[in-house]
Amino acid sequence: MSTASATRGVNVTAAGVLELLERGRTLSTPVLRSAVERLAPPMDTVAAYHFGWIDAAGRPADGDGGKAVRPALALLSAEAAGVPPEVGIPGAVAVELVHNFSLLHDDLMDGDEQRRHRDTVWKVHGPAQAILVGDALFALANEVLLEQCTVDAGRATRRLTVATRKLIDGQAQDISFEHRERVTVEECLEMEGNKTGALLACASSIGAVLGGASDSDADALEEYGYHLGLAFQAIDDLLGIWGDPAATGKQTWSDLRQRKKSLPVVAALAAGGSASEQLGELLAADAKNPETGAFSEEEFALRAALIEEAGGREWTSQEARRQYATAIAALDKMDMPDEIQRKLVGLADFVVVREK
Amino acid sequence: MSTASATRGVNVTAAGVLELLERGRTLSTPVLRSAVERLAPPMDTVAAYHFGWIDAAGRPADGDGGKAVRPALALLSAEAAGVPPEVGIPGAVAVELVHNFSLLHDDLMDGDEQRRHRDTVWKVHGPAQAILVGDALFALANEVLLEQCTVDAGRATRRLTVATRKLIDGQAQDISFEHRERVTVEECLEMEGNKTGALLACASSIGAVLGGASDSDADALEEYGYHLGLAFQAIDDLLGIWGDPAATGKQTWSDLRQRKKSLPVVAALAAGGSASEQLGELLAADAKNPETGAFSEEEFALRAALIEEAGGREWTSQEARRQYATAIAALDKMDMPDEIQRKLVGLADFVVVREK
Repeated sequence: MSTASATRGVNVTAAGVLELLERGRTLSTPVLRSAVERLAPPMDTVAAYHFGWIDAAGRPADGDGGKAVRPALALLSAEAAGVPPEVGIPGAVAVELVHNFSLLHDDLMDGDEQRRHRDTVWKVHGPAQAILVGDALFALANEVLLEQCTVDAGRATRRLTVATRKLIDGQAQDISFEHRERVTVEECLEMEGNKTGALLACASSIGAVLGGASDSDADALEEYGYHLGLAFQAIDDLLGIWGDPAATGKQTWSDLRQRKKSLPVVAALAAGGSASEQLGELLAADAKNPETGAFSEEEFALRAALIEEAGGREWTSQEARRQYATAIAALDKMDMPDEIQRKLVGLADFVVVREK
Repeated sequence: MSTASATRGVNVTAAGVLELLERGRTLSTPVLRSAVERLAPPMDTVAAYHFGWIDAAGRPADGDGGKAVRPALALLSAEAAGVPPEVGIPGAVAVELVHNFSLLHDDLMDGDEQRRHRDTVWKVHGPAQAILVGDALFALANEVLLEQCTVDAGRATRRLTVATRKLIDGQAQDISFEHRERVTVEECLEMEGNKTGALLACASSIGAVLGGASDSDADALEEYGYHLGLAFQAIDDLLGIWGDPAATGKQTWSDLRQRKKSLPVVAALAAGGSASEQLGELLAADAKNPETGAFSEEEFALRAALIEEAGGREWTSQEARRQYATAIAALDKMDMPDEIQRKLVGLADFVVVREK
């Protein structure tokens, strides 16, 4: 075994990463689809719409089901533990189910009308279906894992449950931050660790757990995934303000519209200086006004420019790199095949350079 | 061991049943409270309000936490398997958590404003908190069970997960029925079996599973709980139309207001005859009118009278007795101490005579 820092130079090509993502999708989708087909009507149809398998009229579609980073990680983690990637499939599917449960509920709570370039489920099928199908996907996640009556399936379910609770804690913190005038950078990182880090940590270790990895090996993989999640989220926060709507499928200034106290915002507010102060005054005034939905493009552009001027954009970009480095370093804590380690590094590279 | 039919004459007194409910509450509530305290703010507070531990202003309260039939059953099921009742505690708590997760979400989906004589969570804390805290309680349920890393904890979680999925299926069916003109009695029973039977089945067996009971013994207890759940729901359907609001804490004609196709309604519609036909015409007209919320008391009273005249009330009352008898008969499929069997019969008696 070589160390991650030594392997860092030996890049997996972009094509290699796409292959890993494709493998994750190919191996997990049939199991995911057969799980979703178990749902009672109309939940099966609503879920199929959410996953992009059918359109709003019920016609077969080949929608954007997301990047599928999590399934790719789950299968790689099985290989990191020295078992075939297929061992990680129930874990990959369970994590995807939990991820999509949270998307369904979060879109409703946040009032988001678009996801993956399509209307969100609550918008098409109503709030009750968004709640119900979310609940059903969460339950299915446990069902898929516990179909194997093994001690490792129990361990995996336990880790997934803890991750899911953190995910929910993170969403609760995220919502509460929208109603607060000030949020510290530390609070924001904690929230993002819960909301994004925990489930990516689980995705990065669940295949290994199903393959009988020791707790300390699973913890090392979780650490990689947790910090990768924080890097991923930092990029997401940048895209949430400066992302290209054509690429992200979200509105311009999406996070500003929702008054999200995301990393660029809290970092800018913490930075001090005149742009930071002006931003603080504007946001404080916004907080007293429930009608920011009526803001003009110029008003959002001004806030974005102040965040950038105060250094929030640059700090977040550096933070993504710091979290990436911590993720990569964690891989050295586990003895795994060099080739798998390089692939995990390659996936991390992919996560921090994405544009959507 | 004597048979359930032989023990049926030896009644557990009403005081004995209240003692069983009290024991369930006393043993499970501290574990439930400490689980809920793990939630991130403000979810801990919102959950404490839902459980009746604090009022809407956050002051300590001693609210009506429900009848606590499920915890009592979980502890008894442990004893049925020959282990101390305490073995069933994590099961009792997990089932209560799942039950309350479903109440939080169902109240929001159904637009119910009152539960247990208090405003519902979505009414006091908003829809987002009702969704989030429901999700969190569901996750906590698995967490509480899987804290013990045993094969039996995995078996129990698996059964709870299957029950939860049925519960969600049942709610989906219930919602879809409100939009349909006709629902058969069989469809209604299937929906109620999912919505109420499945979780009571789990409550009635989970302590035994945690105590290492065989699958066939667990299945016998599930069968008892499933049919007890159907008896419970038949009574609930009667109370949903003819219950005393002072006792139930719900509005008068609660189920009619929500156009629920509950058992008395579907049985009345299936009965034929002039009252049945008149009811059918009225409900068909109602279905085209979204504004039944504006109906007068007299309009609901007319529908209730027609349901009764068509025999829907009497049929449902008999159905409760049939389901009760099936539940009791299932107890003979498992070898358990006579005293425990009598107690399970006593709890079943309590369920079918309740007024709220």
